[in-house]
Amino acid sequence: MKKLINDPDAVVREALEGVEAAHGDNVRVNYDPMYIVRADAPVQGKVGIVSGGGSGHEPMHGGFVGRGMLDAACPGEVFTSPTPDQMLEATKAVNGGAGVLHIVKNYTGDVLNFEMAADLAKGEGIDVEAVVTNDDVAVQDSLYTAGRRGVGITVIAEKICGAAAEEGQSLADVAELCRKVNGQGRSMGMALTPCVTPGSGEPSFELADDEMEIGIGIHGEPGRYREKLASAANIVERLSTAIVDDLPYESGDRVLAFVNGMGGTPLIELYVVYRELDRFLSGRGIAIERRLIGNFITSLEMAGCSITLLRLDDDLVRLWDAPVDTPGLRWG
Amino acid sequence: MKKLINDPDAVVREALEGVEAAHGDNVRVNYDPMYIVRADAPVQGKVGIVSGGGSGHEPMHGGFVGRGMLDAACPGEVFTSPTPDQMLEATKAVNGGAGVLHIVKNYTGDVLNFEMAADLAKGEGIDVEAVVTNDDVAVQDSLYTAGRRGVGITVIAEKICGAAAEEGQSLADVAELCRKVNGQGRSMGMALTPCVTPGSGEPSFELADDEMEIGIGIHGEPGRYREKLASAANIVERLSTAIVDDLPYESGDRVLAFVNGMGGTPLIELYVVYRELDRFLSGRGIAIERRLIGNFITSLEMAGCSITLLRLDDDLVRLWDAPVDTPGLRWG
Repeated sequence: MKKLINDPDAVVREALEGVEAAHGDNVRVNYDPMYIVRADAPVQGKVGIVSGGGSGHEPMHGGFVGRGMLDAACPGEVFTSPTPDQMLEATKAVNGGAGVLHIVKNYTGDVLNFEMAADLAKGEGIDVEAVVTNDDVAVQDSLYTAGRRGVGITVIAEKICGAAAEEGQSLADVAELCRKVNGQGRSMGMALTPCVTPGSGEPSFELADDEMEIGIGIHGEPGRYREKLASAANIVERLSTAIVDDLPYESGDRVLAFVNGMGGTPLIELYVVYRELDRFLSGRGIAIERRLIGNFITSLEMAGCSITLLRLDDDLVRLWDAPVDTPGLRWG
Repeated sequence: MKKLINDPDAVVREALEGVEAAHGDNVRVNYDPMYIVRADAPVQGKVGIVSGGGSGHEPMHGGFVGRGMLDAACPGEVFTSPTPDQMLEATKAVNGGAGVLHIVKNYTGDVLNFEMAADLAKGEGIDVEAVVTNDDVAVQDSLYTAGRRGVGITVIAEKICGAAAEEGQSLADVAELCRKVNGQGRSMGMALTPCVTPGSGEPSFELADDEMEIGIGIHGEPGRYREKLASAANIVERLSTAIVDDLPYESGDRVLAFVNGMGGTPLIELYVVYRELDRFLSGRGIAIERRLIGNFITSLEMAGCSITLLRLDDDLVRLWDAPVDTPGLRWG
């Protein structure tokens, strides 16, 4: 195992100390239990938004804490769900009286723990709504999931709901918006290589030198099939066909197109992928109105990519374009 | 070789087509000869800034074309210098009458070709100044370089000089500023793994499973020494000591600290590195006032990192903070 770390058991905590040292003007880090929270939390009268999940997917979620996106993020150990007490304390820390939205990727541990945290928070008088994302069309159930996995749309939902909360929308409205984004979003990913978690020191799975895995999850859990490595055009066609046919996205649709790197794929390759996606969608009469290209929901150093589409309308475009100021996404 | 590409010989061109498809509102791509240029170029009365170099280091340089940073970037083939005709045409395309600055990393091919392009541009009546960056303290000469290599400071110089040009500073002043940034900047990098260029299909060098290379260049060219993998704390101490002792940076100095990923290193590890750098510099009485953490000058999928420091003053802080709107850096 080759990693820039000190102690495999201390990676998450030490990375958080790095986050605090780097971004302490904008976020605070709580270590016991662990969460990253906006420095100005709670923002009175604003819906608070909390997400979280296993570490190893950075910048998601901790890199998205800041004005216009998340109020707090709860990092678990690498590829391990955070605990209910993290989520509860984060929820209390961001509650400004307008309630708190939990955005939860559909992984069984995350869902159960966020449910428990929501119950506890409600017991303390905090209004909580939870939305579970499940945009991955690859498989119905998987190693860690009943139903579809929540993947790339989570990043987009955090951005769009963050903007809505910043505008002063109510908890019910922000939650409804989150369900809408999830409902209009679909994703699928693939991998060229496995990743190695610091704790295990072993590759998350085995792939031959000439193989790829289509439909993989963000922890290296199995996808739809494993086969000989194909061209970018062929790979994009298969991912995109599965995505587009699922919702379905239709001629005349306006979309946000998100080409995400799994961590170890160079940006030059992600732009080749984007070229193919642009051609594919053009051929279907689907117009890309907004795009995001880069490493945003990763699997440590895994090589590969995922594609996420979101069907847009004017309201979603406005919220996507709204200013955001986080380490992982910043504009406006 | 496992890459998300179609044809090894078409990677650069197809990635540029992806850039054009994605960012066509803000940049134009010229294919013969190849360069990326601001859509609104030439900006009348503004100093134009052109950089360039081999591809495979994305987002540098093409990802830094836009308001507040570069006016144009010339991508060579992967790890191969661009040609003088690319640089000449890019120079002409961004000349708004106030002259053009070439920011050139010290690699022999880049330097010679930019010199030729500058001569040709001057022959056409364009005022050109060139600044060669050479911030890498690792080695005096290297495989592709006489003198020190130009690495991480190039990104920072492009940002700061881009802001100065946007303010309307003269060519002489922007060039002097670039020399100042280079003079006050130092870098050093290391690698855990090699990378594979699409053209060769072979690793750029060999490293045993328990080895790392300290002082490596951005093409995998040899560094200072190769030894057993050490802890992040130990690695950072060695890189930082070499950097700090070289300028030297002294107690009371204010710096911009840039922790750069080589492409294949997860962000969580870069934050562990940042933690160590923060501690190291604190111990020396050096204050980090600004920071940049992520993959900005890469070597395809190489795992590893580099550290760059820039000694700051109020003027440099103001220019660093100025708005920038490029695919690779965006704020304000």
